[in-house]
Amino acid sequence: MKIKIVWIGKTREPAIDALTNEYLKRLKHYAEVETSVLKDESGLSKLSGREARSVRYDLVLLDSRGKQMSSEEFAALLGEHQDRNLPLAFAIGPADGFSAEIRAQAKVVLSLGRMTLAHELARVVIFEQLYRAFTILKRHPYHLGH
Amino acid sequence: MKIKIVWIGKTREPAIDALTNEYLKRLKHYAEVETSVLKDESGLSKLSGREARSVRYDLVLLDSRGKQMSSEEFAALLGEHQDRNLPLAFAIGPADGFSAEIRAQAKVVLSLGRMTLAHELARVVIFEQLYRAFTILKRHPYHLGH
Repeated sequence: MKIKIVWIGKTREPAIDALTNEYLKRLKHYAEVETSVLKDESGLSKLSGREARSVRYDLVLLDSRGKQMSSEEFAALLGEHQDRNLPLAFAIGPADGFSAEIRAQAKVVLSLGRMTLAHELARVVIFEQLYRAFTILKRHPYHLGH
Repeated sequence: MKIKIVWIGKTREPAIDALTNEYLKRLKHYAEVETSVLKDESGLSKLSGREARSVRYDLVLLDSRGKQMSSEEFAALLGEHQDRNLPLAFAIGPADGFSAEIRAQAKVVLSLGRMTLAHELARVVIFEQLYRAFTILKRHPYHLGH
C-alpha cells in the first residue's frame, strides 16, 4: 500500500531525523512509504483535494483538536486502507495548526492526546504508531497491548 | 524545586538519549533535575513510599491506564509543587507496565494519550512536557496553546 508522510517546515533537531529514519526503515518492510517536507499547508490539496494528481490520498491530519484513537483502532484504519489498496497520507502541521479549509478535506483529524506536543515529536510518534499498527496487523510481538 | 525522572531499563536508541539530554539541559534552567535508570520498579518505593530516604517525592507514574491532562493542567500540577517546594518524581514504566502496588503509591497515574507509545518515546514526551510546563508557568513563548 502507498503511504505518504508529510510535514511542514525544516527539522531543527538532528536526533528527530535519526528516529524518523529508523522507523521509516522498519516501515518500508510493510508498505511503500514516501516522505515529503512542505513549506506550508497549501501543497496538501495536491494530495487529497480536487487538485489531486494521479494518486489521490485519503488525508489524516494530526491536530490536537481531532479525535483520539487507540493503537488498535489506528491499526484497523490502516488495515482497511491496505485491504482496499487505498493510498493514505499523514500530515503533521505547522506550529499554528491547520486551516479550517484543509481540515475539511481530511478523512480523519487525529489527536495524539490532550497534551500539546512539539511538532517534531508528533512526527516521531506518528512514525512509531504506523510501525506499531503494521506489527498489530501482522501479529508481530512488538505491540504488547499496554 | 527538585525533580527526579526515573526510567526502567537501558536505552537502545542513541537518538533517544540525544533528545532526552537536550530537554534536560533546558529543564535545568528551571529546576534541580536528576535522572536515574532502574533495573525494575522496586527502587521506586525508596523515592515515595514508606521506605523513602531523606527526600520524599510525590510520584507521577506514566501508565496508559492513567488519566490524561492537558499541558496547562500538567503545568498547574508542577506549579503547585514548585510553590510549596515539594519534590516531584516521574517514572516511565517497563514494557509490561507498573504493578498495582506501585500504582497505589503514586500521586498521579498519567496517560499521555490513548495510543500505546514505546517507552523510550514516552520518556522524550514527558521531558518535553516538563520543559513546556515551565515555559507555561514563566509565560515563555515556547507554548502557543495548540
